[in-house]
Amino acid sequence: MKFYDCKTAPSPRRVRIFAAEKGMQLETVQVDLANGEQFGAAFREINPDCVVPVLELDDGSRITEVLAICQYLEEVQPEPALIGRTPVERAMTMSWAIKVEQFGLMSIRDAFRNAAKGLKGHALTGPHSYEQIPELAERGRKGAVAFLERLEQHLGGSEFVAGEMYSIADITAMVFVDFAGWIKIGRPDDAVHLRRWYETVASRPSTAA
Amino acid sequence: MKFYDCKTAPSPRRVRIFAAEKGMQLETVQVDLANGEQFGAAFREINPDCVVPVLELDDGSRITEVLAICQYLEEVQPEPALIGRTPVERAMTMSWAIKVEQFGLMSIRDAFRNAAKGLKGHALTGPHSYEQIPELAERGRKGAVAFLERLEQHLGGSEFVAGEMYSIADITAMVFVDFAGWIKIGRPDDAVHLRRWYETVASRPSTAA
Repeated sequence: MKFYDCKTAPSPRRVRIFAAEKGMQLETVQVDLANGEQFGAAFREINPDCVVPVLELDDGSRITEVLAICQYLEEVQPEPALIGRTPVERAMTMSWAIKVEQFGLMSIRDAFRNAAKGLKGHALTGPHSYEQIPELAERGRKGAVAFLERLEQHLGGSEFVAGEMYSIADITAMVFVDFAGWIKIGRPDDAVHLRRWYETVASRPSTAA
Repeated sequence: MKFYDCKTAPSPRRVRIFAAEKGMQLETVQVDLANGEQFGAAFREINPDCVVPVLELDDGSRITEVLAICQYLEEVQPEPALIGRTPVERAMTMSWAIKVEQFGLMSIRDAFRNAAKGLKGHALTGPHSYEQIPELAERGRKGAVAFLERLEQHLGGSEFVAGEMYSIADITAMVFVDFAGWIKIGRPDDAVHLRRWYETVASRPSTAA
């Protein structure tokens, strides 16, 4: 297996943490996103959508999208389980991981990519040029704050994001909270459940991955 | 199991088609999205994010998010396989299904929800109010056209979206093409591969579900 990564980007970090939790060593290729390597002809052969992460298998198959890659790693090395051990556990974990992506990560992505000076003309990832929309940056900030509140409320009744088990939903939510820090959206002082949960998950050695 | 559905909405339709392909009958509750039932106290108990679909299990667990629901149905009734029979097949299918969601369905959602007169103040699904952003509607239309081109190119070398097997990736892509029709974005006349594929998948009896 070969893992196309970018050490500074939030999406591949989710896979790195996932693999570290399983004690898996992935042969890694760094893609220099800051200098546009993802748009070059060589990387387009790997992924025409010009994004990392990509997991290339020995048979040549290339898996893109974080949750598809994690699902594959879980199947080839089931323990420790980070998606689940039963159909219901797996469904609840995937449901929460997708929710955190859609309401959390997407909000920060909108806020960040529509405002960063270095991303003019690149408000979306991928090979096409899209101009920044300042109103969308603003909406993204509101969405991120709303989702932090949603998590606070949810974690009041749940040890981890998807229930009693540490999972890819926690990894995704922790990366969301850290990514929110990039645009100076912190954890609210009164978010006691979110803070309790964040301290637990962020202290795991895998987060250094 | 109880399935919270809305007959006119694209997201739950993906689950309806998926279940029909498997010959599963789901006990269904219609949620009246047009009249705001998803924002009422009763439905908020079911899903605080105020969206359908939701699959409620007999033990009370509630699975949200289309791909998590489909994964659960695949596990409890594996045949006919609509995600895959091997870890690689499942990963490639999920990867494509997510790609079609993110680049395809999200583009149409942006285009539709930021322009429809009836959705002022509801440019995003969920309990919070977000004003429409006309530039985002325009960007969504561009994104949808770009993704139709991406699919055309991809289907030139692939019988179905995720390879040789009809799957949830095809269901998602067909719903994307149909949803594009809502905002009058059709399949380009010269998109021969897309047309060949669409005729194949849209002629399956399950599409009436």
